[in-house]
Amino acid sequence: MEKVTVSIITIGDELLIGQVIDTNSAWMAQQLNKAGLWVQHRVAVGDVADDIWNALDEEGKRSDIILITGGLGPTADDITKPLLCKYFGGTMILDEPTLAHVTYLFEHVFKRPMPMLDRNRKQAEVPDVCTVLKNRVGTAPGMLFEKEGKIFISMPGVPHEMKGIMQDSVLPLLKERFKLPYIGHRTLITFGVGESMLAEQIKDWEEALPPFLKLAYLPNYGMVRLRLTASREKEATDRTLDEEFAKLKALVKDVLVVDEDITMEQLVGRLLKEHNKTLSTAESCTGGYIAHLITAVPGASNYFRGSVVSYDNSIKKSVLKVKENTLQSVGAVSEETVKEMTKGVLEVMGTDYAVAVSGIMGPDGGTPEKPVGTAWIAVGNNTKIEAKKLHFRFERVKNIELTAMNALNMLRLFMLENS
Amino acid sequence: MEKVTVSIITIGDELLIGQVIDTNSAWMAQQLNKAGLWVQHRVAVGDVADDIWNALDEEGKRSDIILITGGLGPTADDITKPLLCKYFGGTMILDEPTLAHVTYLFEHVFKRPMPMLDRNRKQAEVPDVCTVLKNRVGTAPGMLFEKEGKIFISMPGVPHEMKGIMQDSVLPLLKERFKLPYIGHRTLITFGVGESMLAEQIKDWEEALPPFLKLAYLPNYGMVRLRLTASREKEATDRTLDEEFAKLKALVKDVLVVDEDITMEQLVGRLLKEHNKTLSTAESCTGGYIAHLITAVPGASNYFRGSVVSYDNSIKKSVLKVKENTLQSVGAVSEETVKEMTKGVLEVMGTDYAVAVSGIMGPDGGTPEKPVGTAWIAVGNNTKIEAKKLHFRFERVKNIELTAMNALNMLRLFMLENS
Repeated sequence: MEKVTVSIITIGDELLIGQVIDTNSAWMAQQLNKAGLWVQHRVAVGDVADDIWNALDEEGKRSDIILITGGLGPTADDITKPLLCKYFGGTMILDEPTLAHVTYLFEHVFKRPMPMLDRNRKQAEVPDVCTVLKNRVGTAPGMLFEKEGKIFISMPGVPHEMKGIMQDSVLPLLKERFKLPYIGHRTLITFGVGESMLAEQIKDWEEALPPFLKLAYLPNYGMVRLRLTASREKEATDRTLDEEFAKLKALVKDVLVVDEDITMEQLVGRLLKEHNKTLSTAESCTGGYIAHLITAVPGASNYFRGSVVSYDNSIKKSVLKVKENTLQSVGAVSEETVKEMTKGVLEVMGTDYAVAVSGIMGPDGGTPEKPVGTAWIAVGNNTKIEAKKLHFRFERVKNIELTAMNALNMLRLFMLENS
Repeated sequence: MEKVTVSIITIGDELLIGQVIDTNSAWMAQQLNKAGLWVQHRVAVGDVADDIWNALDEEGKRSDIILITGGLGPTADDITKPLLCKYFGGTMILDEPTLAHVTYLFEHVFKRPMPMLDRNRKQAEVPDVCTVLKNRVGTAPGMLFEKEGKIFISMPGVPHEMKGIMQDSVLPLLKERFKLPYIGHRTLITFGVGESMLAEQIKDWEEALPPFLKLAYLPNYGMVRLRLTASREKEATDRTLDEEFAKLKALVKDVLVVDEDITMEQLVGRLLKEHNKTLSTAESCTGGYIAHLITAVPGASNYFRGSVVSYDNSIKKSVLKVKENTLQSVGAVSEETVKEMTKGVLEVMGTDYAVAVSGIMGPDGGTPEKPVGTAWIAVGNNTKIEAKKLHFRFERVKNIELTAMNALNMLRLFMLENS
């Protein structure tokens, strides 16, 4: 089985001046990889005809499949469709099924009073040399072209439209067309140990790995994800991956969080659900971010009751019953305060577990005793509350994210020890 | 003044299998653009020697400056440094100042018990043909190479390390080396009108724009950012941009949010601060996300008191005093509930303004009367509370984000009308 290679081309000035972060490519790469396709190159170009043309030439030489997103909107800055038409030697024609679909969207789906304009109607025009791929949720259809044995597929850049076309058409079509090899991954997550230390700990094992196994280190938010990858015949690949993954897990067992590629908030949610327990949070410096992470997981209402974001000290006192004396004597960023916040939110929300945080995230507000980046985290239930002080040395949003991630990890450990 | 062009190369398998979203490139592009440098191409390649080598060749032909991130970590999957050494024809040597800095970081900055390992010491080794760029916050230094009149700069992929090297060394150095042209932007933000309608509204003006002005449409979360760009002599550019921007503002005045490139939460924060008012939120379906957006802005403690995330109905009753009868008769996702939540949180938090939301974000929980995507939003002060029902048709996280953004916009309009 040969390796089927993919290039992703994203089009749009907004990517090159940094006004937009490209989240599409990561999602596409994940899906393609799962299907056994090898993304080997990603390119971003501006709304510049020559640059798009060259990218088509270059990536067409490089890869078997070229996926293109962006540049298909209804406005004048989008030059991609006529360019594709010229590149593949076609003529623009009106595609009746697409027009019917665009009309349907305007009449039945787009709820706001939104008349259909000429420029919307124009979105049903496509090069006669393409196969139209239906865009269920939007007006710009996907388009498939073939040239010199290579497949080019153009999709709109709006994430949910691109995702719909990928799932409805592109992935099924590519799976049918190619005999795709198997690509296997095993991922585990560690917490609280740096990349270097981890590498040192698994050095001998790593050096003895069969050459067709690849190990990657992905550090993020105090965690390191370790990913083993191989691509061979499915059964042999899975067997070797399982064997080596078992050894790896044993080597890192002291810092192992989970042996799957899931998020900390998914894991915490799963633990709560399994033990049939409920959670609440009391957040000062994280401002609701922990609650947001937890509730971004579908089904969170099964275990999450709520949060008191007590950004102002008056709320810590009035809602969470933190003592005036505590705030006066040791301050809001202290062991006593986060413990009282935990106790308070356990009572207010009536949950089995609670987490509380208070800190100074920056850029201002630090003192010599409590510099920017100081965070107190407490976690507890009705019989026990534990607290810990941490210090982060990053900018505001990253400090918030790290505080939240550490709070979730403390909660995870507390639940494992006290359930 | 010639256009000085930049290519960005990001290295790492994690980018090509979609395990990581590339946020570095957007930040770099923003900074470069501000400095008058033109990012014309972005490429992502895996940890594959041939692919990195080819990318250096190709981008070296394409652009004046080639910025490279990633692949410099202390672990075995990072192959970039020896490859760069070979590509630029050098020999690895130990850089004493870097070693002293790495040692300092281990002894004085990294707070956890973390011994310095051989692999950390190795990070002080660099090709003898490079200029070392100090990495204040991390162990992998930046490296500048020159070849055939082109400048290549390699930086670690860890975002705050890359940012430090860019700000300390790369940007000052490039500004000194090149006579950079001026690139001017004017951005405004509209809310609640689609890209097509907007384009229709400004069609005549857009068609009459001088050819060296470029207009871009950037739709996101119910907003459309319109960006005018030009690059000529500074004074003339700014004058033309100002003139055309004034005309554009007049054309879209009914849907104009702000005539700057700032976020909705920054704008809401500024309004609160200017009017010396305070805010609280009561969040059900958004689970703390509105509070998070608001508190991610530095200085939010000046106007934000807190939030009650009443995910469970029991919290709506106990903390926010939503009536049992309301929940029984019209349910948690209703005009009455969000209005009572608003009233409740105004009382609990003692703020001037409050926002409340309740909805069904999916994937489950919808009913024929209240399908997935239904969101009720209320906003008010002590004399008036207004509510509105919206419906979104996306997946969970996007529905949450859209609900939050609409709530912030309703708050903005309410403040403007009732201050």
